[in-house]
Amino acid sequence: MKLSPLQKVRYQYNPKLPGMLRKGISEICVKNGDATQSVADQEKIQALFPNTYGKNEITFQIGKNTAEAKKQVVGVILSGGQAPGGHNVICGLYDALKAGNKDNVLYGFKGGPSGLLEDDYVIFDDEYIDSYRNTGGFDIIGSGRTKLETAEQFAVVAEVCKKHGITAIVIIGGDDSNTNAAVLAEYFAANGTGVQVIGCPKTIDGDLKNEDIECSFGFDTATKTYSEIIGNIERDANSAKKYWHFVKVMGRSASHVALECALQTRPNVCLIGEEVAAKKMSLAQISNYIADSVADRAAKGWNFGVAIIPEGIVEFVPEFSVLIAEINELLAGEKTEQFNALPTWKDKYAFIEAGLTKESMAVFAILPESIQQQLFLERDPHGNVQVSLIESEKLFSALVKDNLAARKAAGTYKGKFSPLHHFLGYEGRCAFPSNFDADYCYSLGYNAFMLIQYGYTGYLSKVSNLSHPAEEWKAGGMPITKMMNIERRNGKDKPVIRKALVELDGKPFKYFAEHRDQWAVETCYVYPGAIQYFGPSEVCDTTTVTLALEQE
Amino acid sequence: MKLSPLQKVRYQYNPKLPGMLRKGISEICVKNGDATQSVADQEKIQALFPNTYGKNEITFQIGKNTAEAKKQVVGVILSGGQAPGGHNVICGLYDALKAGNKDNVLYGFKGGPSGLLEDDYVIFDDEYIDSYRNTGGFDIIGSGRTKLETAEQFAVVAEVCKKHGITAIVIIGGDDSNTNAAVLAEYFAANGTGVQVIGCPKTIDGDLKNEDIECSFGFDTATKTYSEIIGNIERDANSAKKYWHFVKVMGRSASHVALECALQTRPNVCLIGEEVAAKKMSLAQISNYIADSVADRAAKGWNFGVAIIPEGIVEFVPEFSVLIAEINELLAGEKTEQFNALPTWKDKYAFIEAGLTKESMAVFAILPESIQQQLFLERDPHGNVQVSLIESEKLFSALVKDNLAARKAAGTYKGKFSPLHHFLGYEGRCAFPSNFDADYCYSLGYNAFMLIQYGYTGYLSKVSNLSHPAEEWKAGGMPITKMMNIERRNGKDKPVIRKALVELDGKPFKYFAEHRDQWAVETCYVYPGAIQYFGPSEVCDTTTVTLALEQE
Repeated sequence: MKLSPLQKVRYQYNPKLPGMLRKGISEICVKNGDATQSVADQEKIQALFPNTYGKNEITFQIGKNTAEAKKQVVGVILSGGQAPGGHNVICGLYDALKAGNKDNVLYGFKGGPSGLLEDDYVIFDDEYIDSYRNTGGFDIIGSGRTKLETAEQFAVVAEVCKKHGITAIVIIGGDDSNTNAAVLAEYFAANGTGVQVIGCPKTIDGDLKNEDIECSFGFDTATKTYSEIIGNIERDANSAKKYWHFVKVMGRSASHVALECALQTRPNVCLIGEEVAAKKMSLAQISNYIADSVADRAAKGWNFGVAIIPEGIVEFVPEFSVLIAEINELLAGEKTEQFNALPTWKDKYAFIEAGLTKESMAVFAILPESIQQQLFLERDPHGNVQVSLIESEKLFSALVKDNLAARKAAGTYKGKFSPLHHFLGYEGRCAFPSNFDADYCYSLGYNAFMLIQYGYTGYLSKVSNLSHPAEEWKAGGMPITKMMNIERRNGKDKPVIRKALVELDGKPFKYFAEHRDQWAVETCYVYPGAIQYFGPSEVCDTTTVTLALEQE
Repeated sequence: MKLSPLQKVRYQYNPKLPGMLRKGISEICVKNGDATQSVADQEKIQALFPNTYGKNEITFQIGKNTAEAKKQVVGVILSGGQAPGGHNVICGLYDALKAGNKDNVLYGFKGGPSGLLEDDYVIFDDEYIDSYRNTGGFDIIGSGRTKLETAEQFAVVAEVCKKHGITAIVIIGGDDSNTNAAVLAEYFAANGTGVQVIGCPKTIDGDLKNEDIECSFGFDTATKTYSEIIGNIERDANSAKKYWHFVKVMGRSASHVALECALQTRPNVCLIGEEVAAKKMSLAQISNYIADSVADRAAKGWNFGVAIIPEGIVEFVPEFSVLIAEINELLAGEKTEQFNALPTWKDKYAFIEAGLTKESMAVFAILPESIQQQLFLERDPHGNVQVSLIESEKLFSALVKDNLAARKAAGTYKGKFSPLHHFLGYEGRCAFPSNFDADYCYSLGYNAFMLIQYGYTGYLSKVSNLSHPAEEWKAGGMPITKMMNIERRNGKDKPVIRKALVELDGKPFKYFAEHRDQWAVETCYVYPGAIQYFGPSEVCDTTTVTLALEQE
C-alpha cells in the first residue's frame, strides 16, 4: 500500500498525555469527587437509572494504582459520523490496555453498533494499530448509525459479550450514542452481566459539551480544515474583488462550527441559527441583514465578500418551520399521490397555493423556484421534507439578490452582485487529526481504560483544562446520567443528553457580536492556512478560539 | 490587522534561490546559449516579431557581473486568475532590484493590465513588501483580465512608462498574458521606447509548460490543496462506505490538475479530457466506464468511491461539442426571442427537438433535465452556451445513475448508488504557497530583475531542474517567441504561445494509465493531508508527482 509522506511521519508522532497519566498505569490512582445529579428531571432520570444514577465524579492522579489487575477483554465501537481523532481513541485505549496486562484483549466491532449485534469484529494487534496511529477517518473498523436502544438489542449484545468473555465496551460517539451507552450500562448493571460501558465524546458539530465536557473531539481539526478553506476563499475574494462567496458549513442544527470558523477567519457575514431563533427572524430579515453588508461594501467599491451559513439554519427560522410543517401536512398520506399526479409545476403550484395558509404561502412565494420544487419533490421515506438537503447557501444568495434588486430600483444600491456557493462538510471529517485532537483523543482512549480498570460503568471518559498545555490537562470520569434530562422525542418522553447549542450570552458569541459590524463593512479577513503538524507550538498546538475564549 | 499564527511565521521564511543566484548580484554573469526559433510557423512569427525574434537562450552563472548598473524603474502587473506564489515573484523582484541599486524603484500597477492603462499604481517599500512575503493571493496589487493587445493600448502604456521613467515591465501571467508580453516587447523595440518587457509563467492550470518551462507557478500549491481535500473525502468515503463522491477540479480545458490530483490520491476514477478527445469518446461510453467501476466495487460490497472530473471535460467530448454548436446556431440572433416566448419547458423542448439533428437530439435526450435547461436558459452576452458553467460532476453522476439502473434491470448490478458532488477551485488558488512555490516564485522574480539588468526584452524568466533541490536549480531566460505558433482565434490567424495539454505518451499519463484499472476496483486511496511548511524535507519540500515522473 502506498502511503503519503505525511502519513509516514505522522505514524511516528507520540501523542501527549495529561501529566497525571504519564507515570505509567501502576502510578495512577483515583480521587473521588462529589456525587452527581442529572442537569434536570432528577427524579425521573434516577427512576430510569436506579443502578447507575448519582455516582461520584472522579479524577485520576499520580499515586499507587489500587485497581484489581484482572484480565480485561474490551470491545470498542465507532458510532455515527466521522470525526478526526477516532483512530487515536482506539490507539490510546489499546496502549493502556496492553500496558495494564499484556494478555488483555481489544475487540473492534465493525461498521458501528451493528457490528456488536452481528458479532462482526477484528482483534487488534500491534501491527494493525500501528497502521492507524494519528490518522484521520474511521476506516480502522468503520462506523454506522444503527441505534442501540431496545432491550432485544441489549440482550444480543450481552450474548456476544458472554461469548467472547468481554468485560467492558467503549462507545465512541455523539450525544445520542452516549445516551445509549448510559442505557446499556444500566441494562448490564440491572441484569448482573458484569459488563462495564464507557463513552467517549465525539462529534465535529461541537454540540456535545457542557460544564464537564469542554469539547467533543474532531471539532478542532474539522473547524481548522474548514477555516483553511474559508481563509483561502477570502483571500481569493479579496484578490479578484468580484464575487460574493456563500459558504455553508456542516454542524447539524447547532452553529458552533460556523461560529468557530467565523472567529478564525473574520468573514463579512456569519449567520448563527440560535440567534435567528431567539430573535424570531424571518427569511426577509436575514436576507436584508446580509444585503446591508453587500450594499455597504459596494458603496466603497467592494463588490465582493464572504458569508458563512450554518447547515441547520433554516430550521431556526420560525416562519420556515411553520411552512415545513404545513407542507408535511399538505402531502400526508394519500395526498402525496394526488399531488404527484398533477401534470405540470403550474398545476402543483396552484395545489400548494390552495393548501397553505396565507402566511406560509407568503414565505413560500419568495423562495427561489429550485428550492420550492425541492420542498415538494424530494421527500424522505416518511413523506417529510428533507430539511437537511435544502441548499440554504443558494436560498440566501437568491433572497439577497432579490433584496438588492429592490434597492437598485430604489436607487440605494449601485453595485454588482455575483454569488458563488460552497458546502464544506466531507472535506473536514476525516482530515489527519491536528496535534490537539491527536493528543486529546489518545488521552480519552487511555483514560477510558483506566475507568474500566477501576470498575466504573456508565461513565464518560473526561479530559479537561484543554486550552492549556497537555501536561496540565486533567483526566477522570463523569457519570453520563449527570448530563441527562427528559426530552420529548417522537411523541415519547426520553432520557437524553442535552444537546449544547450556541449560548448567546457565552463568550465566543459575544466576541463575535461585538466585532461583526466592523467585519461586515471592512475587510478584516484572517487567513489561517493549512493545519500544521510541525513547527512552532503557536502554529501547531493551539486549539480553537471558542475554547480559548471560554477559558480565558 | 489581525494575522493568523501561520502568517506571522511565514513572514520569516527565507525562500531558497538557485545556487547560481546566491552569491549576490555582483557575482552573476550571463552564459549565452543557442539562438532560438519558434516551435512552428517560423517565417510568420519572425515576420511579426522582427526586433525580438531569434534571440539566444541564456543561463546565468556565478561570475563577475558585467551589466551596466544604471538606475532601473520597473513596473509589475499580475494578470488573470490567482495562483499561489504571485506575491513572492514581486518580493523576489523587489529584493533583487534593491540589491542591485538602492535607488531603483518598483511600481505595482493595480488590478491587472488595466492598472497600466489607467496609471493606477503603488510604489513598493520595505514595509509594504514585508507584509506580503510568502503569502497567498494576488491582493498585494490585485489582478484583472483586461487584455493588452492593441496598438492604442500599447501607446497608452508607453506614455505611462515615459511619465514615470519606467525602464522595464514585468508581466506575471499565463499563456495569453505572456503572448501579449511578447507583442508589447516587440512594440516597444520597434518604436525605440527603450522599455524592456519580461514575463513570468503563472497558472494553477499547469498548461503553460514546454521543453523550457518545466511548470507554471501555483500548480504545485493548488494541486496539493485539492489533493488534501480529495484525500480527506476518500478517507470519508472509505469510512462511511456509502457514498460515491464526484469531485470536479479547476484547470480550464487541460486536465493537468485532475491528473496530478489522481497521481497524489489514487481515486477510483479520473477522467482525462485529452484522452476523451483522442478516443472520440461519447457521453455514454464515459458514463459506462465510470459505471464499470461502481458495479465492480458493488460486487465486492463496496458501494462507495471517488471520481475526479476535470473542469473542461465536456468540451473534449466530440458529440457534445457538436450539440453545443447546434444549440448556438439554433438560438442565433432573433431566434432567441422566439424561443424565450414559448410558455412552458414542454413547448421549448418541442422547439429544440425540431431544430437539432437526430444525432444531437439523441445526445440532448440523455442529459438530466437540469443540464438541458441550463444549456438553453443560461447564455453569455453573445447568446452562446456557457460551457464552463455546466455542472459536469452532476452530469456524469446522473448518466451513471441511468446506466446503473439499466444494469440493475438486466440483473448485472445489485448495489446502491448515492452520489455526492464537489467542485474544487477557489479553495486552492490563494493558499499560502508551498515551500516549493514560495522558492520558485521568489527565484522567478529575482531572476526577472537579472534579465532586466542585462538588457533583455521579450524574455520569459526561466528557472529549471525543478524536481531537484533548489541549490541545483538553473536560472536564465528564454525568448517568448520560441514558444509561439500561429493559431486561429476568432476567425483570425494570431501568434500565440501554444497551450500545453496532457500528453498521452508522457510519463505522468502513462503511469496513471498503467495503474488505473487496479485503482478502479480496489481501494488504493492515498491521503496527502494538509500542505506542511515545516518538518522533514520529504514532507515540506517535495514538488508534484507530475514533475517527478517527467524528470525521473
